[in-house]
Amino acid sequence: MIITIIGLGLIGGSLALGLRESGFADSVIGVDNNPGHAEMATTLGLADMMLPLAEAVRRSDVIVVATPVDSLTVLLPQVLDLVGQKQVVLDVGSTKGPVLQSVQQHTNRSRFVATHPMAGTEYSGPEAAVRGLFEGKCCVFTDVDNSAADALAVARQLYEALGMRLTYLNGPEHDLHVAYVSHISHIASFALALTVLEKEREEQRIFELASGGFSSTVRLAKSNPDTWIPIFRQNRDNVLDVLDEFINTVSRFRTLLIKKDFSKFEELMRHANDISRIIDPK
Amino acid sequence: MIITIIGLGLIGGSLALGLRESGFADSVIGVDNNPGHAEMATTLGLADMMLPLAEAVRRSDVIVVATPVDSLTVLLPQVLDLVGQKQVVLDVGSTKGPVLQSVQQHTNRSRFVATHPMAGTEYSGPEAAVRGLFEGKCCVFTDVDNSAADALAVARQLYEALGMRLTYLNGPEHDLHVAYVSHISHIASFALALTVLEKEREEQRIFELASGGFSSTVRLAKSNPDTWIPIFRQNRDNVLDVLDEFINTVSRFRTLLIKKDFSKFEELMRHANDISRIIDPK
Repeated sequence: MIITIIGLGLIGGSLALGLRESGFADSVIGVDNNPGHAEMATTLGLADMMLPLAEAVRRSDVIVVATPVDSLTVLLPQVLDLVGQKQVVLDVGSTKGPVLQSVQQHTNRSRFVATHPMAGTEYSGPEAAVRGLFEGKCCVFTDVDNSAADALAVARQLYEALGMRLTYLNGPEHDLHVAYVSHISHIASFALALTVLEKEREEQRIFELASGGFSSTVRLAKSNPDTWIPIFRQNRDNVLDVLDEFINTVSRFRTLLIKKDFSKFEELMRHANDISRIIDPK
Repeated sequence: MIITIIGLGLIGGSLALGLRESGFADSVIGVDNNPGHAEMATTLGLADMMLPLAEAVRRSDVIVVATPVDSLTVLLPQVLDLVGQKQVVLDVGSTKGPVLQSVQQHTNRSRFVATHPMAGTEYSGPEAAVRGLFEGKCCVFTDVDNSAADALAVARQLYEALGMRLTYLNGPEHDLHVAYVSHISHIASFALALTVLEKEREEQRIFELASGGFSSTVRLAKSNPDTWIPIFRQNRDNVLDVLDEFINTVSRFRTLLIKKDFSKFEELMRHANDISRIIDPK
């Protein structure tokens, strides 16, 4: 198959590597309106060639749009304008509400499959592309009833070729879940980093002391705002709900410390230990 | 040298492995009042022999007390009662206020060196002991003016044999810094885990969706309350101060979302990105 990937950053670039390596893609065409990214993607061999959007779409069996989520709502209708009834269009966006909205009335809606391969790192751009990023991770398909059966079959094969597990949610469910399992982690991490950085104005020692536990908790605070601001903008209402719950939970720990109620504090910690059921499943 | 390690959990057990492997210890004697841990430590070969406390201390050049911090304040004076002027006693506690207090007036205070090797994982017990845990990490020495020069020299050699960088702080400075770089990360992680677990009562989907970013942020929520409750109890006042700052910072993100002030939100994120200076130093 010939695959066009629009946006050769962390996700698009890693898809390019994985799809070629798995043999799913016979060739990968890149489209990127950032000249620096386009050049870097070529240098790194992420794409076999870089082409303008219309030309790339015309030549391809599958077109994956892997730009920040605010560009998706603009690009997807444009790409759907260009495709025929044998081509398949995918997005990889982290939020689904506005994306689904942007194509809902499109005459070629059925050629589009809304997908979210849930994988990533705190880095961004073509240099961040890595092999095996998607292996064993989960890819969420949303609103599949509006996709043609053959388009859906191609999308499934594509992600299975990358070693992903597939799951199905409707758009609003997806956006609520990712607020819990992804977006709130990022805000907690950003807030933790800022708390320490504001302290560090006074004290250089923190540099020396930052240890493993700290590094893993603030890792996400290195994430690129160009990716994340559009996500928070689009998923604002869900993120606010989860943020309120998170602040309440942190405040429960605070109140227990104030009251020196270490018995209840321990009970909460033991309950939190259950998280290993989720992150270290048997 | 003959080294006694009291408490063969994650830290004590990893010290045993590292000190023998580096050649610093000719033999390691273990002391552990938890029979299950003592047996496991023997099975895993962490110690050459297990002995009762007094007998172990009598035979040793260096005694490392590696129990939870609430036991340290009880055990350290007992161990100092037993040592002569050529022996060295170390603790590895994560908080220093009560520990230093517990030995301040002891006639053998100068044989004690208060140290905190800042390394660990979210696991605990003898099975959690790992080789190389301390390599490249920072060890904080506190209140060194009250330790004899020869005792201090032995302690330095011991941690340098493990590949650690040494740094020096007074007790109150240490306890404030660790509240920032370690204790608050744990509470944030516990709160994040609870927030998701309480949601998950309604929805099984979160299991499937939990991805890499989430896992690294909640990793510390697997930590053992038996270790951490005594730490939070002893460092309560510092942790409360830092917790207030953290809650304020999370609340700033919340307010900006409510106001849809994404320009200021982005500014905070870019400031938080500076954390890479600390966790990925050049």
